[in-house]
Amino acid sequence: MARTADVDELVGRARAGDPRSVGRLITLVEDGASQLRGLMATLAPLSGRTHVVGLTGSPGVGKSTTTSALVSRYRANNHRVGVLAVDPSSPFSGGALLGDRIRMQEHATDREVFIRSMASRGHLGGLASATPQAVRVLDAAGCDPVLVETVGVGQSEVEVAGEADTTVVLLAPGMGDGIQAAKAGILEIGDVFVVNKADRDGADATARELRHMISLAPSEQGAWRPPVLKIVATQGTGLTELIDAIGSHRDWLESSGTGLLRRRQRARSEIQGIALATLQERFAGLGGDGALDALADEVASGQLDAFTAADRIVASIAG
Amino acid sequence: MARTADVDELVGRARAGDPRSVGRLITLVEDGASQLRGLMATLAPLSGRTHVVGLTGSPGVGKSTTTSALVSRYRANNHRVGVLAVDPSSPFSGGALLGDRIRMQEHATDREVFIRSMASRGHLGGLASATPQAVRVLDAAGCDPVLVETVGVGQSEVEVAGEADTTVVLLAPGMGDGIQAAKAGILEIGDVFVVNKADRDGADATARELRHMISLAPSEQGAWRPPVLKIVATQGTGLTELIDAIGSHRDWLESSGTGLLRRRQRARSEIQGIALATLQERFAGLGGDGALDALADEVASGQLDAFTAADRIVASIAG
Repeated sequence: MARTADVDELVGRARAGDPRSVGRLITLVEDGASQLRGLMATLAPLSGRTHVVGLTGSPGVGKSTTTSALVSRYRANNHRVGVLAVDPSSPFSGGALLGDRIRMQEHATDREVFIRSMASRGHLGGLASATPQAVRVLDAAGCDPVLVETVGVGQSEVEVAGEADTTVVLLAPGMGDGIQAAKAGILEIGDVFVVNKADRDGADATARELRHMISLAPSEQGAWRPPVLKIVATQGTGLTELIDAIGSHRDWLESSGTGLLRRRQRARSEIQGIALATLQERFAGLGGDGALDALADEVASGQLDAFTAADRIVASIAG
Repeated sequence: MARTADVDELVGRARAGDPRSVGRLITLVEDGASQLRGLMATLAPLSGRTHVVGLTGSPGVGKSTTTSALVSRYRANNHRVGVLAVDPSSPFSGGALLGDRIRMQEHATDREVFIRSMASRGHLGGLASATPQAVRVLDAAGCDPVLVETVGVGQSEVEVAGEADTTVVLLAPGMGDGIQAAKAGILEIGDVFVVNKADRDGADATARELRHMISLAPSEQGAWRPPVLKIVATQGTGLTELIDAIGSHRDWLESSGTGLLRRRQRARSEIQGIALATLQERFAGLGGDGALDALADEVASGQLDAFTAADRIVASIAG
């Protein structure tokens, strides 16, 4: 395990754009290394600059292909780009997924593109996601934007939206996604809707249905109206419009003050997640020192009631 | 809601054996009344005397009938008896279950028998069971033994064992229970095994299979060897032997010191359950005072890292 001095050196190299150092820092984040706290304290003032774009959608809608196409466009504009491919179903992380490897391989030799697959759950007992911390590493390394790609399974897409500044929801024609979108609450989380594979039958119908559903949603003055775009990611069709839509949303976040509120909400969730995980860790570690046994004996013999004993335990956990 | 003075009066009347006061105290326990802490502090020195007998088994093995038959025997010996019928599947409690009403109705007019159905989950967020506290009420009211009857579904039977001094596992012939017992880990929790409906085909085979499995379990010098009894609860056959076996186990608990260890373990679980529920309640109530927002803003702007912010939240929760 790296020492603190090494961590500072790693951060320095990561900021200079060294991919290997970025990778090692993300590994430290994922593993919950002992220097994690120090690392995050170092990164805090270096981050908070990037624009985090979440991409979500059902399996098969073309998330990785779209992500890869987006990377190409951002690279053409000379951006340094970070990609986190979050797999909510996998407890494993570190290496890239096979699918990502294939679809992302055109960027494999580009030193200005940082691609990382990770499990959605961090080390902290399955509660706190390591994603925000990995985003901070990429942010400090000068990546802007950071693309966070997640399979939309159950709750995970909502979590992705919670961690992104701009959430792009992908759909494909003929998958009944329109109806599903409404069901899954995807309408609420999408800032930009994309109908990929727009050269296929039903693309117009899917886009129309989406626009209709969006028009039914209540909207206040000055609120963001999510656009519905049609693209063919494999051919690069519609990508310019997608980049523009993401840019417009970023501008709106800034001008409306919503961006600030989202970042606050994101920080709230992150703090709560870490706090809850910390409490649970301490809770699980209870009783090793005999204090709990002593209290239990008092309760068992009727000298003390269980609530008073629990109060003492709660106080000791927080200490 | 009763005031504290009323609670003390209720406790006094419960100790004198007033069924209505016992019922009201258990309701206070279940509802998590504001006076719960005071009540438990009052009850603590008055309890810790009774022998808690857990009865568990699959639906249809005759738990309620056996419990009712046990009550009759204990009453014949002039014991005051408490019965808690815990339903792990039901969020409701208070009144007796229909099945219990029918099977227990012979005791309905007996003022020395206290019967109560309750949900297995207490008010504390589904984590802390109210059962130990209800047992304490019955204990303070002079019930000895207290019979806790629970349907053996999944984890609940293990929980029952955790709350009982003596756990009686019921089986019936021809239900494949022998095999199931081994699977469900019932062998580990049973202090006394009972094959009910022993007048039916297969009772001997079930008993033999059980004895064989018990004989295979590792056993230390002086350890309790769970007996396997055959009874016909509807006819009262074998009940004397069951009462004797429970009594023998109680004696063994006392002489071996195991009873003390079990009561300590039970108190540990109870304290931990209440402490965890308390922490989760406080956690859920976080953010109402703006402190979390202020921390979140600092994290969002990079002035503070999320771990340091989480530490402050943890400290405030415990305070």
